[in-house]
Amino acid sequence: MKRFGTITALILSVWLLTACGRLGSSGDSGGTTSTTNSGIQTTGQTSDSNYQGVIQNGKYLTSKARGVTKDQNTNGYNLKSFENGLQSISQKQFATDKYIFQEGQYIKKATAQKWLARASKKNPSGLNPKDNGEKDANKRNPNYLQALEEQDYMTQSGNKLKLGGMTIGLAMNKIDYYQKKEYGATYQTKIPHEKMVSEGKAMGNKVVSRMRKTEGVGDVPIVIALYEQATNDSLVGGTFFAYGISKDGGKTISEWHDVDQANYVLPTVGDAKSGNSSDAEAFNNFKSQVQSFFPNLSGVTAQSHYKDGNLSGMNISINTQFYSETEIRSFTQYLVTAANKYLPNNVAIEITVSSTEGTQAFVAREAGEKSFYSHVFGSY
Amino acid sequence: MKRFGTITALILSVWLLTACGRLGSSGDSGGTTSTTNSGIQTTGQTSDSNYQGVIQNGKYLTSKARGVTKDQNTNGYNLKSFENGLQSISQKQFATDKYIFQEGQYIKKATAQKWLARASKKNPSGLNPKDNGEKDANKRNPNYLQALEEQDYMTQSGNKLKLGGMTIGLAMNKIDYYQKKEYGATYQTKIPHEKMVSEGKAMGNKVVSRMRKTEGVGDVPIVIALYEQATNDSLVGGTFFAYGISKDGGKTISEWHDVDQANYVLPTVGDAKSGNSSDAEAFNNFKSQVQSFFPNLSGVTAQSHYKDGNLSGMNISINTQFYSETEIRSFTQYLVTAANKYLPNNVAIEITVSSTEGTQAFVAREAGEKSFYSHVFGSY
Repeated sequence: MKRFGTITALILSVWLLTACGRLGSSGDSGGTTSTTNSGIQTTGQTSDSNYQGVIQNGKYLTSKARGVTKDQNTNGYNLKSFENGLQSISQKQFATDKYIFQEGQYIKKATAQKWLARASKKNPSGLNPKDNGEKDANKRNPNYLQALEEQDYMTQSGNKLKLGGMTIGLAMNKIDYYQKKEYGATYQTKIPHEKMVSEGKAMGNKVVSRMRKTEGVGDVPIVIALYEQATNDSLVGGTFFAYGISKDGGKTISEWHDVDQANYVLPTVGDAKSGNSSDAEAFNNFKSQVQSFFPNLSGVTAQSHYKDGNLSGMNISINTQFYSETEIRSFTQYLVTAANKYLPNNVAIEITVSSTEGTQAFVAREAGEKSFYSHVFGSY
Repeated sequence: MKRFGTITALILSVWLLTACGRLGSSGDSGGTTSTTNSGIQTTGQTSDSNYQGVIQNGKYLTSKARGVTKDQNTNGYNLKSFENGLQSISQKQFATDKYIFQEGQYIKKATAQKWLARASKKNPSGLNPKDNGEKDANKRNPNYLQALEEQDYMTQSGNKLKLGGMTIGLAMNKIDYYQKKEYGATYQTKIPHEKMVSEGKAMGNKVVSRMRKTEGVGDVPIVIALYEQATNDSLVGGTFFAYGISKDGGKTISEWHDVDQANYVLPTVGDAKSGNSSDAEAFNNFKSQVQSFFPNLSGVTAQSHYKDGNLSGMNISINTQFYSETEIRSFTQYLVTAANKYLPNNVAIEITVSSTEGTQAFVAREAGEKSFYSHVFGSY
């Protein structure tokens, strides 16, 4: 894949929308005809809640700093929920019918790595605090920032795409995991919530001022979204807790907005919290109904997601042993019946049925829809 | 799970439809309220082309002879396509809005094992021919029958379910794989197509006459469906080639009907057949369009299925390395655009995007529908 050598070239280059150009077009637009070498296309759009993405020279324009985290992010749920949630936060500022999503192009990989590292003489741009030499959990300076991700939101002007705004997510630690010596045991420094919030906001302001100096960013709105990582042993990812916008070329965030999100795992184990008790009960009823369908169905678990105190979605995983095609078909129909009967209304529901051979079937209802879609994965 | 002791008891028992009873009801019927111990429910129905299934005492009524094949069926594609296809053949005789699907209850496991084995003094009911002692591929008697499966089609009469018909599939070998000594090398006896057809029909007649003697079967219509197994190295399952119906208690099939089905794998390798060349070209255009989306997308393959010479469906598998959530979202939208543009209209399409972490996303259009459904598997 041919990449533009410099950011300047990227910005100045002719962004020809030679083929598609119909922004906001639905998925059945013919948006993928072949393009010239400098051609820009978009992916098409499958729903109003999704952004179209940018395709350059027939290839998807991947992020400059893709997959950069401070250390290996040991909890994959964090990674997924951070990336997904960032687009949701962005929708507060950048409407999906006006903006095209582009993977971050302005923070390069080397830059992201420096920002995520500790500050030091060699690395003055490190956002995490200096190493004070202490090894004790309560005396050392913890790493507050674990990951960052840039997302660009483009607008179309004639046949060109130009940067219309930017969202940068900062994933903050509530626990900083560390080793006292290489390959040694893992220790934890717990970070008080208030400290995590204040550090996140301070870092957000630093990031905004640095972006304003970055060539090509100019005065576009910059959204900073602050995310609290779930602990490494969590079976669900973390949540966003605040976002702020820098408008009109401002070098800081003038106002922060609280984001009220919470994730839970169902059924609860021990004294873990379950979110709203009636939602948890609804899931438990569903679970006990479907768990007895086969003689030996193994596991039914869920992730539930709350916004502003209200359930907004539930992802249910069902693990089975191998069953025949007719059994999976009957089971899937039964799931739809049970989901309609027991699961909460008006929220997004995703149910996957998996065996050791992979995903067997799938039932889902998007937010705002009334009926469930179901599909049994087939083979000829 | 409590099972009825004898077939007689099964038939005579009171089949109370205490809870649901609304046959043909859609998936959003409240069909799963709790039942009494002897209660019969149905699974609900998600589409007109699916049968409802039978739930007994809160558990799915599994087959008496579930998973019985002559030897281990080494090609999993055969198993899936045999089971799926059998329900499609059944729909020619048993309408989905009038009949409820029940896993086979009349051929017990021990019986199925005897029928699948070779005939011998010890096993007079074996449907495969006697061992003539030869080891040479062209001199030995091959095993013609590899697997059989019973499916029951129930009708509702008041609050009871009774047997309304039955389909029995016979999976026939075109190649019989065998060992000359235990754990030895695998040899092949090729079976001429005409011989496979005539053996299948003869066995079908024997099965019908045996079923007529089985308690509880009575005079219901019996459909015999003949399936040709794909070879062990095939990347797609086999196909049905004939079916016949025994009506009014007849002890044989009075008339056989040809079934014209064909499966292909795309892209073709070497001089393998591809089915209709314009369908294959459509797939190739789609493939080359989406394969270049990511810098290193690995594989795009398809199974295509033909009925009566016309394409009836395509299952497309796309394997990627791990990509970020936003990349998968953009890719999925792009897939929908490309599918609309390149893939044949008016046939069922299923596209799965998988990584080593499992199924990432899914795009499908059911037969007769115009728009694609897409879903990216999420995590909170």
